Amino acid sequence: MATAIAKKIRQMAASRREGYTLPGVFYGDQTIYGEEIDVIWQRQWIFAGHDCQIKRPGDYFLLEIGKESIMVIRGDDGRVRAMINVCRHRGTLICTEPSGSLKRLICPYHQWIYHTDGTLQSCQGMQENLDKSELGLKQVAVRSVEGMIYVCLDEHPPDFEPAHETMSTLAQPQGMRRAKVAKIVDYEVKANWKVVWENNRECYHCNQNHPQYILANYDHFNADDLTPALSDKISAAVESSVQAWQDQGLAVTHKTSGMASFPDPDRGLWYAANRTVLSEGYVSETMDGRQKAPLMGDYQSAHVGTLRIRTMPNMWLHASCDHVCSTRLLPRGIDRTQVRVTWLVHEDAVEGADYQLDDIMPFWQLTSEQDWELCERVQRGVTSRNYIPGPFSTYKEYNVDAFVRWYLMEIQSSLSPE
Amino acid sequence: MATAIAKKIRQMAASRREGYTLPGVFYGDQTIYGEEIDVIWQRQWIFAGHDCQIKRPGDYFLLEIGKESIMVIRGDDGRVRAMINVCRHRGTLICTEPSGSLKRLICPYHQWIYHTDGTLQSCQGMQENLDKSELGLKQVAVRSVEGMIYVCLDEHPPDFEPAHETMSTLAQPQGMRRAKVAKIVDYEVKANWKVVWENNRECYHCNQNHPQYILANYDHFNADDLTPALSDKISAAVESSVQAWQDQGLAVTHKTSGMASFPDPDRGLWYAANRTVLSEGYVSETMDGRQKAPLMGDYQSAHVGTLRIRTMPNMWLHASCDHVCSTRLLPRGIDRTQVRVTWLVHEDAVEGADYQLDDIMPFWQLTSEQDWELCERVQRGVTSRNYIPGPFSTYKEYNVDAFVRWYLMEIQSSLSPE
Amino acid sequence: MATAIAKKIRQMAASRREGYTLPGVFYGDQTIYGEEIDVIWQRQWIFAGHDCQIKRPGDYFLLEIGKESIMVIRGDDGRVRAMINVCRHRGTLICTEPSGSLKRLICPYHQWIYHTDGTLQSCQGMQENLDKSELGLKQVAVRSVEGMIYVCLDEHPPDFEPAHETMSTLAQPQGMRRAKVAKIVDYEVKANWKVVWENNRECYHCNQNHPQYILANYDHFNADDLTPALSDKISAAVESSVQAWQDQGLAVTHKTSGMASFPDPDRGLWYAANRTVLSEGYVSETMDGRQKAPLMGDYQSAHVGTLRIRTMPNMWLHASCDHVCSTRLLPRGIDRTQVRVTWLVHEDAVEGADYQLDDIMPFWQLTSEQDWELCERVQRGVTSRNYIPGPFSTYKEYNVDAFVRWYLMEIQSSLSPE
Repeated sequence: MATAIAKKIRQMAASRREGYTLPGVFYGDQTIYGEEIDVIWQRQWIFAGHDCQIKRPGDYFLLEIGKESIMVIRGDDGRVRAMINVCRHRGTLICTEPSGSLKRLICPYHQWIYHTDGTLQSCQGMQENLDKSELGLKQVAVRSVEGMIYVCLDEHPPDFEPAHETMSTLAQPQGMRRAKVAKIVDYEVKANWKVVWENNRECYHCNQNHPQYILANYDHFNADDLTPALSDKISAAVESSVQAWQDQGLAVTHKTSGMASFPDPDRGLWYAANRTVLSEGYVSETMDGRQKAPLMGDYQSAHVGTLRIRTMPNMWLHASCDHVCSTRLLPRGIDRTQVRVTWLVHEDAVEGADYQLDDIMPFWQLTSEQDWELCERVQRGVTSRNYIPGPFSTYKEYNVDAFVRWYLMEIQSSLSPE
Repeated sequence: MATAIAKKIRQMAASRREGYTLPGVFYGDQTIYGEEIDVIWQRQWIFAGHDCQIKRPGDYFLLEIGKESIMVIRGDDGRVRAMINVCRHRGTLICTEPSGSLKRLICPYHQWIYHTDGTLQSCQGMQENLDKSELGLKQVAVRSVEGMIYVCLDEHPPDFEPAHETMSTLAQPQGMRRAKVAKIVDYEVKANWKVVWENNRECYHCNQNHPQYILANYDHFNADDLTPALSDKISAAVESSVQAWQDQGLAVTHKTSGMASFPDPDRGLWYAANRTVLSEGYVSETMDGRQKAPLMGDYQSAHVGTLRIRTMPNMWLHASCDHVCSTRLLPRGIDRTQVRVTWLVHEDAVEGADYQLDDIMPFWQLTSEQDWELCERVQRGVTSRNYIPGPFSTYKEYNVDAFVRWYLMEIQSSLSPE
Repeated sequence: MATAIAKKIRQMAASRREGYTLPGVFYGDQTIYGEEIDVIWQRQWIFAGHDCQIKRPGDYFLLEIGKESIMVIRGDDGRVRAMINVCRHRGTLICTEPSGSLKRLICPYHQWIYHTDGTLQSCQGMQENLDKSELGLKQVAVRSVEGMIYVCLDEHPPDFEPAHETMSTLAQPQGMRRAKVAKIVDYEVKANWKVVWENNRECYHCNQNHPQYILANYDHFNADDLTPALSDKISAAVESSVQAWQDQGLAVTHKTSGMASFPDPDRGLWYAANRTVLSEGYVSETMDGRQKAPLMGDYQSAHVGTLRIRTMPNMWLHASCDHVCSTRLLPRGIDRTQVRVTWLVHEDAVEGADYQLDDIMPFWQLTSEQDWELCERVQRGVTSRNYIPGPFSTYKEYNVDAFVRWYLMEIQSSLSPE
């Protein structure tokens, strides 16, 4: 069986024409989806959520990767841990509330009690010779970087250090560790998770679909539609930012029009972070471009452009001087993706007094919801038998092509030999 | 795999006892259903709808065969075309509204623009060296006969001429090309499409289930329940009709009691058309038998009996002097059939003035809905393990037997060799 | 294919550690579920319902085992029969009402008429040479024991006599044959049927989850939490009951704390019946322990403890002096169980006058609903990839271990050879 899937994946991957979209089988075949869960979602670092969602000992939230329920919890010792949310006795789900705070984890079935670090405290009613030390909750690898929590279900997780290094330097000034959650919105998008990524990896669709986004940014312009006047404008903005940001210890890391390259399968980069200028007159990705909440982190001025962080296979984040908006993808089936969009502000900011949700949310909420609708239309088309893979724009879809190449490399990374 | 299905289908077909219903596996096995989609629904001529649904250039309606979304559209040149409703760029569904009118087909994702004939007009943002002539919407074979539109997803469609010839002569006087849609009603019937056909192919169930139908027709009588008196009545009706219709250039093509034979797998007939007398006092298949709308087409008198057209695998149509009622089947799963019932009247007839929906609809709406309920009961029984194929009535179910033989011939027509 | 399943089941069964829960595959693998339907639900004796649900000739109720619709009906001759609810003509479901009373079974499609014993009475419209004696409804094996009806879909049912013998003696005084249905409540529990049994086979979870149950019973106490004082109390209760019950011809068959052993795969016992004392002050399993309805059957006093009957794979029953509460399980999918809870009282008892539903129902309704919620939590955990089978309490879960051993024996009983 495994060999048959391997053969199918290899054949289909080989059939892909360079510079063209994926064959439809990758969006509609259940066995390929199963393989994705195995080699991507169960083995790679998955963005789980934010440190500031679980500030105090005992605070937790649940995360579902495939059919796995994972509890991300801050222990009594202040450390963040991730563990399988399944009792070691009879397999009961211990918690069903998506988030909360607990002093002990008590399975409601037979009252086995676990400490917040997952060790088994007591199991009254069991034989005395049981070795409790072997019956702790199954631990899951976890890493936290500047307030962003990642987990990995594999017992031998890939190296996290290069990602940590890249993200921590750029993310540090944003102060996500000293943030608070302003709002979480969950969506179930009727599209394969790759369709959602492919949508995210280009701004070719922005002009017509995201009127608010294109006012705030320059990155939807490419060589084909960049006028000399606009080019000068961008250069001027970058130059003045370089100077202004230097005082705050910040650097402009993406200085041209067009989206920054990501992912980079040739160099094995599944993570990226960069800081970019916003359009003239914009200091925040809000509807009118103005600052709408207190400055976050170490920022001394609103003029910090936008910080962008992305990690394959499930997270992107856009930060302005006054708020952060992160997006987390989780697969819920071959044609279903659970998307969580989270807004963060400074931990001391008070809703109603220091900021209004109606000010900080619409920019990314609109952009997100416009995208989900497009993704659902794509899902229906690419699973048609008569769908024919089409060409990417070399001007505007180089990152979708990069995503497709990243994906094909990953999905083939551990196939049984030919 | 394909060989395993072929083997299963051959074995099951061979196990069918002559004159008995199909083995249950044909109503409940997913792999057989997949094969049906492949060799029947993707290769044969499928009734799509009526010409008069798309009178003006740019008018279109969508049609879903299996998972394929097809756009049937009248081009700027007045020709009816069918094309795959999927953008050649990233695979987005171009239209989602089930019907409407468009000047150009614009994909909402990246604004690729197609002409109404499917050719690509523009794709701004793409590299200049793309060959646009290779990126038109995929065309689907289409034929129109006297206002009835058929499509075929196969690149080498079966010969349509014999069907065209048979249908056009009989259908021409009905004037469906000069008709208008009075009403469309869609149903999702929880039964396999073959169960729906088997129900349609006999009138053994009419006496108890279709009280309105048996008043209007003679064809539910067979050799076992035909009295001499009734036989004389039918002969008299046929004789007087032959004379009366001659003046209008119409012929009685089915002159006996019992249903006309259809399909005829021995002679390869997947299409049929015939004109039959109605009961004494009936000039239209309405609840009281009276004419309820202006005469259609070339008819000069209401005394034209009933015109019946049927094509495998998905259409039957009953026409009276004043209206047409067509039924279209589309498979939506092994136990699900989408059924569309469409009423046509003369194109100049005005609702409320020249006809009322409450007059022209109930006869076939009742008959249809009574049948769907029966079909759903059958579906539940024939998918039981303990279902034992039963005998057909040689008097009354000869056409169900013919359908079953047609089906077994088709489903086995392109199996991989033994 | 069959061999692949057999191999998987054998491997998984062998991988189970003694005294531990089942591997997760048994709760989440569709092919194993299919095998369970084949070798357990289609071959064993399945509890269907109570004789008193169909008191008069023509009374029937429907029962769905897997996809099989079975009609359990009392014939004109007073005998209870079970037959497949599918017409022998075209496979239509004959009855869709879950229960009722019929003089003849008439298929609504073509009016084939069957007698209440399933023989075909008439099939007007069919050819004269049909042998009607071969076209009766397919009979299903049925046995009735003291008012409890069992059916078996296999043509060679296992021996029912030992079960009959064990159950009839103990059940006879309860008078279920002279009972009436007070109430039926149906539940769809989102858990595998084995999870529901495993929940039923231990009272380790009772202390926290069933406060009303533990007040009425002693069987949730085991060697680990039985105090000498409590032990004395139980002995005293048993001793006084032995005396008191002797006068009524009843025996205490389970005299210790802890649950009676069931099932017993080593001795091939899939059935059990026993009579036990209730707690001091309790004469009925009601919220306050008092008698709430007229004495049933032969009972001359309320002091009869509780009668418990259980049969694998789908029934348990708790009877008090004044009412019976039976629970019937039917699989509806790998993660779905239909549960029917039925309350019986004396046939002459009048609701509102002799008893109130609010008095006799809450005890077992609460216990049931508390359990279904737990079962649904377990289902979600045991189908996780990261679920690790856990140890049973040797004090409190010996019957869950026995159930697991019974199940593994049955599911492997007819695998194709290695």
